Amino acid sequence: MSKQYDVLVIGGGPGGYIAAIRAAQLGFNVACCESNAYADPKGEPRLGGTCLNVGCIPSKALLHTSHLFEEAGHGFADQGICVGAPIIDVARMTARKDGIVKQLTSGIKGLFKKNKVTLLNGHGSFVGRKGSGEGEVWQIRVGQELVEAKQVIVATGSKARHLAGVPVDNEIVCDNVGALDIDAVPKRLAVIGAGVIGLEMGSVWRRLGSEVTILEALPDFLSLTDVEVAKEAAKLFAKQGLKIITGIEIGDVKVSQKGVAIDYTDKDGNEHKLDADRLIVSIGRLPNTDGLNADKVGLKLTDRGQIEVDAHCRTNLPGVWAVGDVVVGPMLAHKAMEEGVMVAEMMAGQAGHCNFDTIPWVIYTSPEIAWVGRTEQQLKAEGIAYKAGKIPFAANGRALGMGDPSGFVKILACAETDRILGVHIIGANASELISEGVVAMEFGAASEDLARICHAHPTLSEVVHEAALACDKRPLHF
Amino acid sequence: MSKQYDVLVIGGGPGGYIAAIRAAQLGFNVACCESNAYADPKGEPRLGGTCLNVGCIPSKALLHTSHLFEEAGHGFADQGICVGAPIIDVARMTARKDGIVKQLTSGIKGLFKKNKVTLLNGHGSFVGRKGSGEGEVWQIRVGQELVEAKQVIVATGSKARHLAGVPVDNEIVCDNVGALDIDAVPKRLAVIGAGVIGLEMGSVWRRLGSEVTILEALPDFLSLTDVEVAKEAAKLFAKQGLKIITGIEIGDVKVSQKGVAIDYTDKDGNEHKLDADRLIVSIGRLPNTDGLNADKVGLKLTDRGQIEVDAHCRTNLPGVWAVGDVVVGPMLAHKAMEEGVMVAEMMAGQAGHCNFDTIPWVIYTSPEIAWVGRTEQQLKAEGIAYKAGKIPFAANGRALGMGDPSGFVKILACAETDRILGVHIIGANASELISEGVVAMEFGAASEDLARICHAHPTLSEVVHEAALACDKRPLHF
Repeated sequence: MSKQYDVLVIGGGPGGYIAAIRAAQLGFNVACCESNAYADPKGEPRLGGTCLNVGCIPSKALLHTSHLFEEAGHGFADQGICVGAPIIDVARMTARKDGIVKQLTSGIKGLFKKNKVTLLNGHGSFVGRKGSGEGEVWQIRVGQELVEAKQVIVATGSKARHLAGVPVDNEIVCDNVGALDIDAVPKRLAVIGAGVIGLEMGSVWRRLGSEVTILEALPDFLSLTDVEVAKEAAKLFAKQGLKIITGIEIGDVKVSQKGVAIDYTDKDGNEHKLDADRLIVSIGRLPNTDGLNADKVGLKLTDRGQIEVDAHCRTNLPGVWAVGDVVVGPMLAHKAMEEGVMVAEMMAGQAGHCNFDTIPWVIYTSPEIAWVGRTEQQLKAEGIAYKAGKIPFAANGRALGMGDPSGFVKILACAETDRILGVHIIGANASELISEGVVAMEFGAASEDLARICHAHPTLSEVVHEAALACDKRPLHF
Repeated sequence: MSKQYDVLVIGGGPGGYIAAIRAAQLGFNVACCESNAYADPKGEPRLGGTCLNVGCIPSKALLHTSHLFEEAGHGFADQGICVGAPIIDVARMTARKDGIVKQLTSGIKGLFKKNKVTLLNGHGSFVGRKGSGEGEVWQIRVGQELVEAKQVIVATGSKARHLAGVPVDNEIVCDNVGALDIDAVPKRLAVIGAGVIGLEMGSVWRRLGSEVTILEALPDFLSLTDVEVAKEAAKLFAKQGLKIITGIEIGDVKVSQKGVAIDYTDKDGNEHKLDADRLIVSIGRLPNTDGLNADKVGLKLTDRGQIEVDAHCRTNLPGVWAVGDVVVGPMLAHKAMEEGVMVAEMMAGQAGHCNFDTIPWVIYTSPEIAWVGRTEQQLKAEGIAYKAGKIPFAANGRALGMGDPSGFVKILACAETDRILGVHIIGANASELISEGVVAMEFGAASEDLARICHAHPTLSEVVHEAALACDKRPLHF
């Protein structure tokens, strides 16, 4: 007889494992199936998905190490810390990163045990519906087994988009997976795609000594980011030696065992050749519906290949939900988690809710970039009258103490009501500073509210405070 | 004829300079007098008070450098960063710190110019009242000049308390001033007083190689801090090699050119002698009313020597206000600034307000400690039923990536209403993480509110999120 569950979650990434845990907390009998490409040596599936295994978490470990490496080489002398020229032991750096990933993936297994979620080893594939009325269930093939579940949550995530005709071997040509495991600092590193992954991985290897060139097809750099932030980022990255060329068109890419040769046309139509020892392809990600058998059961996809869902992550099939990168919206782990919680609570009859207007974005470059809400260009396009308060970190005591006074905080508020519409930060620790912006926006705060809230001194968060004051043209420290 | 102003601010520290700037923004003709002990070589007064010149700001610069120094010596190898044993160039470290202080003090002068605040060089001293009715003014002597002002804000700050009979020379025996300028790493450093300054400066010199012993008279370590945080801090500091002995009584302190010998009795009544090369005395701070001539004009002081004020910082004298360390309340720069803004707005007839319940506290040790609202021991003492959500950083991906997974976040919420009553953090970047706690408390947030707000992944702020979830016993990652 088939294994039977109240809920089967297909995919153990951030959206899936969180949905599984929350559903189990709410009293459901839950299983989660996973069969990822990062399986451990024993063939056990590793939970955590792209984010934990080959995304957010390992990249942050490398970003931290490479940041300290750069500090040691370029920032220490000015502070009076005398060390020789630092040398990077890439194998050691990578091993530390792997250790962190292993600890956290095992941690999620522990959470499954604690919350009584059954982990199934294998890819989930829809077979069909069985039974009728209240006894109706979905049949799903997981590996060799047939599993039955009253409700199904599809959380199969996304996979890297590759360049047509340029196979990724994760040796010479890497996607997000191989970019984390390059075994020696390449002399010349080419990156195609100046999105989050391209910028973060480009930053890691530049800091460690690579000559990095990033080619971007779009004419505008970081077009989703607030225009002023994008401009500041371009300026700062250029100063760091990160060469970013936008508006290009990729031509022939020749790959040999020694490296790559990339033909591209610049925005003025001139042809160039870029030679590099390694190439990272980071041109976006595609929703992962492979092997789901969506066609067979009539699971509707959008024309971009995502599973079609309503605002509560319901698909067109009864009892089937979908969350995370496989549905519409930003491909962010915390967005997937929010959806996972929402779906579990909806299944339990609660008022699950996900506020897509207050999901923060982070890019972990140096300085970091983070924002929540609308950008200035969006407000202009929407014809919303707004006021802006913008304050640089340059005059902030904590930023100076940290030796990192670059960037600024910009708050956008409604000209009429003063309600905060967006918070944009480029600067040290932006990833953490954004949280107060999110909380403020969730409470419908006015810029005056933030301006009247005490901020600890000396902290970087004082710049958020000043930006709020600046919305009313009365900053105290600028 | 005397110089005449609407408002004279006595003291250019955080409370004073902010009050002056805000009052000027509101249309007053404002002067601020300052004559500090950290005057620059030209005899010009330096703005920024203790905080900027010999407090928060320079200590943070040294804490940053010493933190990196320790990372280089103890954390780099594990990350694959190969450097020789680091050597500290104390003069260079100190020069960088001095540069930051100079930049910021000059910055405040620039803010005075921009906001049209007149800077007067000299100590302010009350002379008396003159005139009658609406023309009535205060006469204040500033240096050699007599100044007249309709309203006066006293912001004279505080000074270090010293040990009776042990003169501070800021060579062998230092207070907060000399502790920032020790010219070589002492082999053995004694610190008397395990408060914020003692812990921060003790941490700086320990990281740089000193054998540090901190003697504390109180039986409990960090008694103002939440008990669990204090316990965790004691454990972590001990592990770092910071020797902290509480419940002692200081006996004879003998000072020679070579060092100090401190006799003390431990909590069991046993006598000890501690020999050290340098001594930092950090046993609290006293309100600074010297030379104000408070007696003469009848300015009322509390029995602890503070200027007595009401909840809006009004003194007993008409048109005289007082803010910051010289009045009751925590001696925190941002508390002084809040009061400064409030007083300026009250003078302008606005509804100035200062919420003393949501002023955050920070201790910049490693890990950092920060909190807002009430501690668990306070809630118990007040008989308030509460629930607690406590989550360690140990399972947080960002903390692991940073190599600093120590500490925890604890949220205390009302058992009946779920309203957040306190947020307590010991961990990396606690100083920045606390800001979302402050914003949440200002909005009267329930723990469920924070639990339902999206937090960017991977960030340390996710631990705040989990702590909020844990208040309802449903953490997702623990």
